Amino acid sequence: MPSDQADHSRGLAARLEAELAAANFVDPHSHIEPASASATCLADILGYHYFTELAHSAGLPRERIEGEGLDDEMRMEALVAGLGPLSNTVQYGWLMEIAHDLYGFREPDLTPANWRSLDAAVRSRGAEPNRAEQLLAASHIEAVFLTNDFDDPLEGFNTARYVPCLRVDELVFHTGKEGVLERLARSSGVEPASHAALHEAIAAVAARFRRSGARAAAISLPPGFRPDPVEPADAARAFEAVRARGSEADPAARAALAADIFRGVARCCEAEGMPFDLMIGVRRGVYPGGVHQGQDLLDGRLSLADYAGLFNDFPTVTFPVSVLSEPLNHELVSFAWIFPNVLPFGHWWYANMPSSIERDLEQRIEAVPRTKLLGYYSDMYKLEFGYPKFAMYRRVLAGVLARRFVIERGWTEEAAVDLGLDLLVRNTRRVFYPEEELLR
Amino acid sequence: MPSDQADHSRGLAARLEAELAAANFVDPHSHIEPASASATCLADILGYHYFTELAHSAGLPRERIEGEGLDDEMRMEALVAGLGPLSNTVQYGWLMEIAHDLYGFREPDLTPANWRSLDAAVRSRGAEPNRAEQLLAASHIEAVFLTNDFDDPLEGFNTARYVPCLRVDELVFHTGKEGVLERLARSSGVEPASHAALHEAIAAVAARFRRSGARAAAISLPPGFRPDPVEPADAARAFEAVRARGSEADPAARAALAADIFRGVARCCEAEGMPFDLMIGVRRGVYPGGVHQGQDLLDGRLSLADYAGLFNDFPTVTFPVSVLSEPLNHELVSFAWIFPNVLPFGHWWYANMPSSIERDLEQRIEAVPRTKLLGYYSDMYKLEFGYPKFAMYRRVLAGVLARRFVIERGWTEEAAVDLGLDLLVRNTRRVFYPEEELLR
Amino acid sequence: MPSDQADHSRGLAARLEAELAAANFVDPHSHIEPASASATCLADILGYHYFTELAHSAGLPRERIEGEGLDDEMRMEALVAGLGPLSNTVQYGWLMEIAHDLYGFREPDLTPANWRSLDAAVRSRGAEPNRAEQLLAASHIEAVFLTNDFDDPLEGFNTARYVPCLRVDELVFHTGKEGVLERLARSSGVEPASHAALHEAIAAVAARFRRSGARAAAISLPPGFRPDPVEPADAARAFEAVRARGSEADPAARAALAADIFRGVARCCEAEGMPFDLMIGVRRGVYPGGVHQGQDLLDGRLSLADYAGLFNDFPTVTFPVSVLSEPLNHELVSFAWIFPNVLPFGHWWYANMPSSIERDLEQRIEAVPRTKLLGYYSDMYKLEFGYPKFAMYRRVLAGVLARRFVIERGWTEEAAVDLGLDLLVRNTRRVFYPEEELLR
Repeated sequence: MPSDQADHSRGLAARLEAELAAANFVDPHSHIEPASASATCLADILGYHYFTELAHSAGLPRERIEGEGLDDEMRMEALVAGLGPLSNTVQYGWLMEIAHDLYGFREPDLTPANWRSLDAAVRSRGAEPNRAEQLLAASHIEAVFLTNDFDDPLEGFNTARYVPCLRVDELVFHTGKEGVLERLARSSGVEPASHAALHEAIAAVAARFRRSGARAAAISLPPGFRPDPVEPADAARAFEAVRARGSEADPAARAALAADIFRGVARCCEAEGMPFDLMIGVRRGVYPGGVHQGQDLLDGRLSLADYAGLFNDFPTVTFPVSVLSEPLNHELVSFAWIFPNVLPFGHWWYANMPSSIERDLEQRIEAVPRTKLLGYYSDMYKLEFGYPKFAMYRRVLAGVLARRFVIERGWTEEAAVDLGLDLLVRNTRRVFYPEEELLR
Repeated sequence: MPSDQADHSRGLAARLEAELAAANFVDPHSHIEPASASATCLADILGYHYFTELAHSAGLPRERIEGEGLDDEMRMEALVAGLGPLSNTVQYGWLMEIAHDLYGFREPDLTPANWRSLDAAVRSRGAEPNRAEQLLAASHIEAVFLTNDFDDPLEGFNTARYVPCLRVDELVFHTGKEGVLERLARSSGVEPASHAALHEAIAAVAARFRRSGARAAAISLPPGFRPDPVEPADAARAFEAVRARGSEADPAARAALAADIFRGVARCCEAEGMPFDLMIGVRRGVYPGGVHQGQDLLDGRLSLADYAGLFNDFPTVTFPVSVLSEPLNHELVSFAWIFPNVLPFGHWWYANMPSSIERDLEQRIEAVPRTKLLGYYSDMYKLEFGYPKFAMYRRVLAGVLARRFVIERGWTEEAAVDLGLDLLVRNTRRVFYPEEELLR
Repeated sequence: MPSDQADHSRGLAARLEAELAAANFVDPHSHIEPASASATCLADILGYHYFTELAHSAGLPRERIEGEGLDDEMRMEALVAGLGPLSNTVQYGWLMEIAHDLYGFREPDLTPANWRSLDAAVRSRGAEPNRAEQLLAASHIEAVFLTNDFDDPLEGFNTARYVPCLRVDELVFHTGKEGVLERLARSSGVEPASHAALHEAIAAVAARFRRSGARAAAISLPPGFRPDPVEPADAARAFEAVRARGSEADPAARAALAADIFRGVARCCEAEGMPFDLMIGVRRGVYPGGVHQGQDLLDGRLSLADYAGLFNDFPTVTFPVSVLSEPLNHELVSFAWIFPNVLPFGHWWYANMPSSIERDLEQRIEAVPRTKLLGYYSDMYKLEFGYPKFAMYRRVLAGVLARRFVIERGWTEEAAVDLGLDLLVRNTRRVFYPEEELLR
């Protein structure tokens, strides 16, 4: 049992955490589907790629996780049996926190002997008509940003609660994929018959998203991407090449078109007054033998200096930036310290672990203006995960505030909590809801 | 309120810090101008690029910071109003430490309502004839290294107190800029009419600096720089190209000439027995829309392996090395562990934050011989900043000594302080004042 | 003296450390020579490259360390006199821990005045016939892996205690060096007269090693190496070029042959069911003026993405991976999190310092399945060093378990120790002794 000081220091951090935990906030990035926002059975929770890929990495064959002919029962049985080697991971911690706090599960671990009772609880609670609202309330989430394809109709849900976000990976990197230009024509009402018309169609998409309540555009970017301007004639030629040959077009043409469309989206964000979230550094399909969504990795051989031209050319566009490679956090801090329109954005994927969050947050919070620190987003696929993920973030944040501000710099607890609320609550509002009176 | 242990642990670190704080030392790198070493009004303090760039980054338009027609009053008013979002930053902490400890300011924060009283105090104290001496004494700084252009006359100041340092960025990278070769001819007495004469002129500059008390040469280097030897014929051709076309010369010629002159400076350091400070990794002008001195950033895509040839070719030249990209600290530690002439040098610019200093120092202090650790330099433009910057460093240093040596390795407090004094005091003497009896 | 909490927190970590210290384990990588496994005089200890290179880095001339005509006495005298500047380093800590705990030395430091008594103790104890067994027992090491050249006869020692490991650097990177192909022919019984026969010879080597008890192949790799498949015709041409011109062959041919042989070794590991240790990122001979084994350094400009093809192509080969550049640890964690056959392997060389181990371990232990964490290896040349190196690792491990699991996540001490034993004991067994019943 901890002694007085541990009690004190833990007590201080725990008090700050409790203050932070009382606040409601907006989750500015997720993959929630409003029509199926919460889990209806345990498979919806265990199917999260963090569990499938870790169980696979620890030795569970892919065929037992997502092979043909498997039903939910078989998949759950396999996954639960594969959890043992994950007991040390923070992801397993999320799972048990969901089980205990959101479903009243009482066992210390999820095992082949007891998972059915948790599954029953998820099925039972998941059938309650207001389950999504319960989960949002339990997580203190007021609104959650989505990830919407460019042709998503954005209908059938409350866009104040489920905030549309225009995800442009497909438009930018897979323009030539079968059906993409047709979907663009259909959803925008503009036939992309020329390079100029292509950009008109994209602008129409952005305008439609904006009218439907979208508050950001977003994209994930591979390490080799260069967001440099492309001469219009070159871009037009590249577009023709991609129209003619699709995904088989010359890689140089595809790269030129990607940069050109990317900059077109940035111009739309400028016109619409919409932030453009950049998630930089993912290499897709590195492990084709991996499970669904467990095939992508990172490559740190890039510099945000590659993006300086973009940041310079669009001074009125706000760029919330996430980096996947943890050592790039120091560059992100430095760029956000200098560029008014660059904001550190959450802790992404492979860098979304407590020890990485702690180090990255410590660098950010002592050098970047407090109004620019976009603390955290859940990146979740089911609403259950907002609860343990934001709790993890608040624990780290409270620890940093306790140690670095209250203890080392002599701040009052009130001042420290106030700083924490900038990261957790206010800056999301400042950046994505600029029309609101700022909550200074 | 902290309990016993916090008292103890903080007490231990505080005791070590107090011991370190009693020591006088040399500050081996600054941008002090001896004729205007200290602030004469608050604008001299708030004009430090850390404040202007952070206020700008947080939203203050450049025009309100350095626009035409602004007087000091208007600039201060704007900057003070822009400080709110910076209250979390360590730079704001420096400002308040200066205000409180050096100017008797009593308010917890600097605000539009109270800044005039601080300005008045700075003006009043700044008018005292011995103000610079007071500030040096308050900071325990015995001597401070300058940053002198190659044609600086180095006259009119006490070079024992204000130690000249030959800064060669302009000579190396801007040889072709209008006026540079003329200034070189004039200040060296050697007309650089040929490649050979160019190097004679540089040698004359170095000799003059040495005669005037210079104790180091220094340069900041972009990430793409390669300090490889250039064939004399190629170098001569490059010099002719740069003489003919100035800054418009072919980039390859300019790069070859830069490498050639850089190595020429290294040869001068060899001949003069003078350390050559390398500050590696800055990319200039990344953000041209930024405020004065707030436009440069970093790019971590380099390795000190690029400098191995240099370190090998000049075994008798000491290279104090600073890296701008924090992840490169591990390379710096490793190179200093192996190369006798490579020494980790301070904590530079974007890596000069407590959390980065702490991590970098921990790696250095457990793996690099204690006699090679050049702890810290201020990099300051006004003497006021030596006070909070070295205080910040000592706090981090004391914390590392307390945790890693006294608590974890069982060292006595005396032994830990003695190690700290190597970093803070003695090694600067060892490296830059080799003629003195070493203070082992 | 520490107060209650320090006592508590140190007490907790110390209890975990004591539990871990009671366990016997296999050391899965060393450079031990079974015939001269332990020191016979102090020079065998002080001759470790960590001491020679650090003393050299701190100013001791190479001629006084390994110049011609020096006897052990002279070398020891010089090295002991050169230890002063190293007193802060963890390597000096290893030395004193060996002196105190393994040789009963009582002085706090090793000095010119007292080293002869330690030397006498080493000579005396080193002459005891069962000295190696004593040292293994003192270190709790049950078996230690060796580093064997491809033509090592693997005879004259107990291969259960001293486990062979096929080191292939020479075969892969120095095929054309004089004598290598002859030694390959002789030791394999296959004349490498063609590209096909070359691979037959390598397969024969691997089979012989396996029969002699080898449990791994291993290689260290430079940052620029690309383990991509080579077309057989290209590989055959490259082999002919290297056979014809040896080390003078075209670099492209040498690189192609290296990649081809490397993949050949991977195929052997696949056939033999043998892990293939990859030690990635060393640049050899960076400092040719350095002492023996103190000339190599690192270069972080690589990504494990370069190895993705390899990991994909050999799904049944286990790759224990060490990275030399500390910032690459985050990539290693991420790749081990996704690829079933990638396992983080110990803490290598320049990253084998407590502060780096602590940070790297924290990232690994919260994100990689516990069954995949190959905690530590000694890399030692003399058995004495297993004692302080594993002790250092256990101290860091116990500290991480105490803080991150017992205190922050509420684990019991028993559960935390059990996790630690996976890293220290069980996973080495799981990976390198798959035929044993797994100690789950």
